[in-house]
Amino acid sequence: MPASSLLIIGSMAFDDLDLPSGEFRDVVGGSATYSAFAASHFTEPRVVAVVGEDFPEPTLGELARRGVDVSGIERARGKTFRWWGRYAKDLVSRTTLDTQLNVFADFKPKLPQSFTQSPYVLLGNIHPALQLEVLAQVKSPRLVAADTMNFWISGERALLGEVLKKIDLLIINDEELRELAGIHNLRRAARAVLGMGPKRLVVKRGEFGALYFDADESCFVPAYPLEDEVDPTGAGDSFAGALLGYLAQRGVLDRAAMRQALHTASTVASFCVEAVGTKRLAALDHATVRTRMSELRALVHPGD
Amino acid sequence: MPASSLLIIGSMAFDDLDLPSGEFRDVVGGSATYSAFAASHFTEPRVVAVVGEDFPEPTLGELARRGVDVSGIERARGKTFRWWGRYAKDLVSRTTLDTQLNVFADFKPKLPQSFTQSPYVLLGNIHPALQLEVLAQVKSPRLVAADTMNFWISGERALLGEVLKKIDLLIINDEELRELAGIHNLRRAARAVLGMGPKRLVVKRGEFGALYFDADESCFVPAYPLEDEVDPTGAGDSFAGALLGYLAQRGVLDRAAMRQALHTASTVASFCVEAVGTKRLAALDHATVRTRMSELRALVHPGD
Repeated sequence: MPASSLLIIGSMAFDDLDLPSGEFRDVVGGSATYSAFAASHFTEPRVVAVVGEDFPEPTLGELARRGVDVSGIERARGKTFRWWGRYAKDLVSRTTLDTQLNVFADFKPKLPQSFTQSPYVLLGNIHPALQLEVLAQVKSPRLVAADTMNFWISGERALLGEVLKKIDLLIINDEELRELAGIHNLRRAARAVLGMGPKRLVVKRGEFGALYFDADESCFVPAYPLEDEVDPTGAGDSFAGALLGYLAQRGVLDRAAMRQALHTASTVASFCVEAVGTKRLAALDHATVRTRMSELRALVHPGD
Repeated sequence: MPASSLLIIGSMAFDDLDLPSGEFRDVVGGSATYSAFAASHFTEPRVVAVVGEDFPEPTLGELARRGVDVSGIERARGKTFRWWGRYAKDLVSRTTLDTQLNVFADFKPKLPQSFTQSPYVLLGNIHPALQLEVLAQVKSPRLVAADTMNFWISGERALLGEVLKKIDLLIINDEELRELAGIHNLRRAARAVLGMGPKRLVVKRGEFGALYFDADESCFVPAYPLEDEVDPTGAGDSFAGALLGYLAQRGVLDRAAMRQALHTASTVASFCVEAVGTKRLAALDHATVRTRMSELRALVHPGD
């Protein structure tokens, strides 16, 4: 396993979750947290993020035990970023009830010297200005991916355009794709967004799986059909983390590797949904991932 | 090709379609029409349906030229069944503006003697009482499928329960499945509905493809990602017609045949959406179907 070849930047947070199964408070979450746990199955990711004085030390210890380099996680004075969301009964639509930036408000990501040589980079859903600051510090990366941009699409369009020109792989959901392109048809929208900079595009569609597009081909991976859906928070971040973690481990970016990475990412993300927070994701072992991945592959087998 | 092994019962209709691309009037449609055109690529289906004096003879001629046995299509005094629907801009949701049963109101399906020995039967979306009347006339069929039941689920629950006990394969969409089972989770709902009678279940999910369930396994087939979506009317009927037509042609019902049938059905249904009414479906040739089917299979290839 190549040590620490993937750099992850994103949020670490407390989430208050109003789920159909109950109300959960102070759940440790954030895009960097989910992505790092997911990626840790394949490589030893380096995380750049900020937490407050209230963030639990055991979570950092758990990440470190899974091989995550936590030396780039800054502990700042004040409170950790906090998000409060309420999910509909079907777990598909959700409403943000409150967001408190806290220590994230003044975050200036500064990469440790050892992090600046990271061939794989995952930019989580943070302000595009911060994404650009991080990218400026990384020396000739091999694959830069950015994940999910929701409200930056309307609010920071110019800066987002800069980011799109500097990344190789964009991972967004179908509604974001449509909004970014201003086109409803997915295939046409994908082509338009590929024209904005990224050479590769992954379109996440929640329970309906994900589509991949580049100049030469497209492919599709389903979501694993779960019997027990509990909490979809972080599933997209887990998908992105596993995708980049797998690619960093493989060290190749050809068609076969990309398809296998997508199946891996869909598999890992499915576990995330089975429990509140990162619980299931953090306790996963390789055999369990491999078994479900076989089931996912069997699901799409064309029959000959 | 085994001649006329598939019996199709359903509606033949005039559709008035308010589409984002324009308003189209007196479009020849109906579940039996779409299913028969789709099935005619694989077998020579027999159709039982009723049309009024106003139904165009050339459409019956077109069906006959494609090998469809139209001798069970009754021409009754009065007007043909008519449906008026308006689609949302995204072509996903639609509203029924008007339904005129016309000759369908007094339809008593009577199978020609030669139709009573049909090993494969497709019951289109008509009143469950009519479905039962048809089934009572068929002698020991090998596979009976019923397609899409929308408002019979709430309106004719007892009769529908009778139908479910007598069929082998149920083809419905995800919302119908959830309503029928009273369960939101698809996998659990599928298991509940399999307990109501049918041994096999296909769950159609529109642009997101379809899932298949039986006692032993499940599988998934994506929808072909179209660039030009024009009119989804009849796509579900085309899916069902191609599925049954393919199975009738193959003459086997094992795992491999079912998976290949699902890929075939998804492929054929995609063409239906590319033009208003049955235009594209009726003009399809085998080579065009084969080419797109290869693309669909490439789309889900796991990469090794």
